[in-house]
Amino acid sequence: MSAQVIDGRACARTLKEGLADEVTRLAREGTRTGLATVVVGDEYASAAYERRLRRLADQLGVAYRPRSLPPGATQAELTDTIAELNADPAVSGILVLRPLPPHIDEAAVFRTLDPRKDIEAVHPENAGLLALGVPRYVPSTAASVFHLLDTWLDEAGEDRAAFYHRSLIVVVGRSNTVGKPAVALGYLREATVESVDEWADRTHGLGRHTRRADVLIVAAGKAGLIRAEHVREGAVVIDVGINPRRDADGTVRMVGDVDHDAVAPRARALTPVPGGVGPVTDVWLFRNTVHAARLLSGRPPLPGPLTRTGPTEPLLEAS
Amino acid sequence: MSAQVIDGRACARTLKEGLADEVTRLAREGTRTGLATVVVGDEYASAAYERRLRRLADQLGVAYRPRSLPPGATQAELTDTIAELNADPAVSGILVLRPLPPHIDEAAVFRTLDPRKDIEAVHPENAGLLALGVPRYVPSTAASVFHLLDTWLDEAGEDRAAFYHRSLIVVVGRSNTVGKPAVALGYLREATVESVDEWADRTHGLGRHTRRADVLIVAAGKAGLIRAEHVREGAVVIDVGINPRRDADGTVRMVGDVDHDAVAPRARALTPVPGGVGPVTDVWLFRNTVHAARLLSGRPPLPGPLTRTGPTEPLLEAS
Repeated sequence: MSAQVIDGRACARTLKEGLADEVTRLAREGTRTGLATVVVGDEYASAAYERRLRRLADQLGVAYRPRSLPPGATQAELTDTIAELNADPAVSGILVLRPLPPHIDEAAVFRTLDPRKDIEAVHPENAGLLALGVPRYVPSTAASVFHLLDTWLDEAGEDRAAFYHRSLIVVVGRSNTVGKPAVALGYLREATVESVDEWADRTHGLGRHTRRADVLIVAAGKAGLIRAEHVREGAVVIDVGINPRRDADGTVRMVGDVDHDAVAPRARALTPVPGGVGPVTDVWLFRNTVHAARLLSGRPPLPGPLTRTGPTEPLLEAS
Repeated sequence: MSAQVIDGRACARTLKEGLADEVTRLAREGTRTGLATVVVGDEYASAAYERRLRRLADQLGVAYRPRSLPPGATQAELTDTIAELNADPAVSGILVLRPLPPHIDEAAVFRTLDPRKDIEAVHPENAGLLALGVPRYVPSTAASVFHLLDTWLDEAGEDRAAFYHRSLIVVVGRSNTVGKPAVALGYLREATVESVDEWADRTHGLGRHTRRADVLIVAAGKAGLIRAEHVREGAVVIDVGINPRRDADGTVRMVGDVDHDAVAPRARALTPVPGGVGPVTDVWLFRNTVHAARLLSGRPPLPGPLTRTGPTEPLLEAS
């Protein structure tokens, strides 16, 4: 048996179509949707990312304002830029690209974002709402992981609630941007969730934890970290890693945190890299932007995959 | 072998002594420390709790202002009371007792707290700072759980960092007040952390998860939920539950979420109920109040058990 490959590009396409309709509807009702990105410095990766976003923005009918500051930009210059975007009615959502240069206090910068435009939930208020189980925004990578899972479950004819309630989701990597939000989304689906960080690897416990996973979400940023022996037969594996690897002939290509060829024979389903989580994440950033445009114009949030699968009140109440 | 019983009262006593010194020091330097509690309705449990806090406040030299509103108090009356306490320079920390009556929007009330006085971290900003790994305040129950653990490790001659790095901490119960903050504190100690909610019990998976725990933290609010078969030989078990149970003769006494007699022969160490987490939590509330008095007067935070055990930057960085 070889794993079903979960097609992120197809999933992203469907998502994009629905989103384009929503942008058109909003525009007809007089609400503009606009995304701003802020980059400090001038890395190749961010230029390529901006081109991808530009193309998507054009296809979706969303205004796109990439703002770029020189690598030596001061904290004040950066927060001035954010203040401008906060005040700009054509901008619904703001994404500050990371990493920021070491002379910038990242947390202080994030706090200057208007929380209503903070589509990646990096402002403490939005991180808090997510942690409390009532998110205003969900960071797009974690949201995409669960959108892929939900979609896959629907296509496999599995009942979402039943699946999540009986499942152990193991999340490898504990970043504020991906790992922790993924844990929060696992909670909203009322799954059992385990968070594993680097120490499990250093103390030789990684496989002990990952081998128990019904769903294994890997966001560690280490090429090929997860091999066959780390995966239970029949697990669903979502690979968030995107790591550049140079082949013998000098070509650089992107590989995931999961050794795809080794894991495929064991897994029930598996996302590829590229073509898995990445394409969905790009579109989800725009979904969050549309969500922001709706909130800023006083509309209710978009319905979607954040819906709880079970009762609102937990039966086990902490005393 | 029978488990070592972790003495919460002794731990609370030591904590209290250090805290009384700190309150005196602050007072000498002109900084007053004051705790306010807000109760809506008139339950016996809250009256007993207020008496306990009053006694502790007197012993510590902290000003204590219990505010009580009638059960029919409106949302506006409650938020007016909070606004008064926010503005009162004699009040450093504010605790709004739960549950609030059903006609009150709890989340909206919590948002009116001055985040600098929100010692239980119920305001989204403080919940967010905790979720992001840079807490301003840690809710006192979760903080007490880890203070007991840290103290026990020190007394057992175990290296804290080595212990946490190799350990799986399983937290049963996923409330915003106890379970989730306990997970966040497990992250700060760089342990592997698993969060289990009621569904694991309903789908017959509770023991499958809890039996793997090196440290089992139970905050489920279900008397006797954890029995011998749920606990691994040699585990450290922290019982957060406080449930009233009526004996045959009509006496009501408090029991934990853990069946103490059944689990004691298997565990390496175990907190009792009463006399475990409870007494430490009462004192920790005042520690958070002192912490607030320091922050409000521009002093650095109290050093303490929130210190990370390992490197600041995770080795596994999510992409």
